[in-house]
Amino acid sequence: MATAEPAGHLVVVGTGPGPAAHMTPEATAAVAGAEWLFGYGPYLDRLALRPDQLRVASDNREELDRARAALAAAADGRRVAVVSGGDPGVFAMAAAVCEAMEAGPAAWRQVDFSVLPGVTAMLAVAASVGAPLGADFCALSLSDNLKPWAVIERRLLAAADAGFVMALYNPVSRARPWQLGRAFGVLRRVLPDEVVVVFGRAAGRPDARMQITTLGEARAGMADMATCVLIGSRSTRLIARPGRPPLVYSPRSVGGEVS
Amino acid sequence: MATAEPAGHLVVVGTGPGPAAHMTPEATAAVAGAEWLFGYGPYLDRLALRPDQLRVASDNREELDRARAALAAAADGRRVAVVSGGDPGVFAMAAAVCEAMEAGPAAWRQVDFSVLPGVTAMLAVAASVGAPLGADFCALSLSDNLKPWAVIERRLLAAADAGFVMALYNPVSRARPWQLGRAFGVLRRVLPDEVVVVFGRAAGRPDARMQITTLGEARAGMADMATCVLIGSRSTRLIARPGRPPLVYSPRSVGGEVS
Repeated sequence: MATAEPAGHLVVVGTGPGPAAHMTPEATAAVAGAEWLFGYGPYLDRLALRPDQLRVASDNREELDRARAALAAAADGRRVAVVSGGDPGVFAMAAAVCEAMEAGPAAWRQVDFSVLPGVTAMLAVAASVGAPLGADFCALSLSDNLKPWAVIERRLLAAADAGFVMALYNPVSRARPWQLGRAFGVLRRVLPDEVVVVFGRAAGRPDARMQITTLGEARAGMADMATCVLIGSRSTRLIARPGRPPLVYSPRSVGGEVS
Repeated sequence: MATAEPAGHLVVVGTGPGPAAHMTPEATAAVAGAEWLFGYGPYLDRLALRPDQLRVASDNREELDRARAALAAAADGRRVAVVSGGDPGVFAMAAAVCEAMEAGPAAWRQVDFSVLPGVTAMLAVAASVGAPLGADFCALSLSDNLKPWAVIERRLLAAADAGFVMALYNPVSRARPWQLGRAFGVLRRVLPDEVVVVFGRAAGRPDARMQITTLGEARAGMADMATCVLIGSRSTRLIARPGRPPLVYSPRSVGGEVS
């Protein structure tokens, strides 16, 4: 059996939605304890690394390669951290590392492996505008790199029909320009134009921008790669406030009809 | 118009799933800055409050009363924090405060109001066992205090049918003993017995207990009030590891069929 002794340590951590104020003390300690840190460059840039820590930055499309390199380093005895934005378990590196571990050499499955949770983007966007995720909700990635578009459409329709609020991750990128517009079109077939839509960009960061609109007015151009899009249910509503932006919330109670 | 000047400040904060290690620096600072703190007793007990801070503990079934009392104190000029476990926007106090604010006097809508995000239970449970939320997922409360059971069943079926992983909040309580068992029965009609189920209790705390089983073996008695139950999709899988518990993960990719 190809086992390495001693097996190292691999921790997958999330930085939260951006500012250090959202990163948990547990994640901060794990970053401080790592020798080698793997991640998408901009996420690593958020960390104050020491000169003795090795920074291994890669492109955000190379998740599986990054996972393999991190596992190999850990199996070789290093203390390794893989750094994600947000929560590493939500459309981020934790699943990629698990996939690589499952398919890789046996030594990778003997690494001391842990995942540390973080604040994921939809929670930060929701908090910035009120409580739109206060009722049942779902999180979908609009990326069709890893699943057929037909599956995405079916999930959008099922979630809208059953009355879930939705958080759309990966709404748009240079390589995927049409998906978000198509998603709005699909949702307009089953939800009224008045449904509340929130474009939440860089939530919690100095350059945060929250745009509150409706499904009828929502356009794909309102989102970029740093945006998480929330689609309300029929019940999601606004509270007007004098001199302040409206609050968005989804009531905890539901009437007899699914709404 | 019944306005109060100067309007105070109300912040809704989440402590994370339990340990101080999961509470964001932003939430910690907000707690330190509050004069009056409202919350369910056990959540307030987690905080190291100063003698000059007023602690207003209430039962966990009195959310709307607590929200009203907190808004009234803020409108009266106090610096108020409402403390939730986990993330305040996920089946917690943020929506209750919005409901109270909408229905209350105009002065309540002039309070300087903010919500600070936190690590919600499903993220901590997921991190504890691997990456079960690595694909599209939804979060449902099984409490039928505020919505009809028929709506819950319809959402369970829609989510299972569309291939979402599910996180079930409020799975059981003394007043709601049968709902989780009924939910498993509903899901067994549409999902195979082999689907992975995780009972995640007190994730991240010293008394944490993660139980990994299958839908065929899952029983309501495996959960209590402190448990978040994850139901895998057909794709969710286990990675066996020598001398360690298996990892649970949901692959990021999906084949042509919804699974």
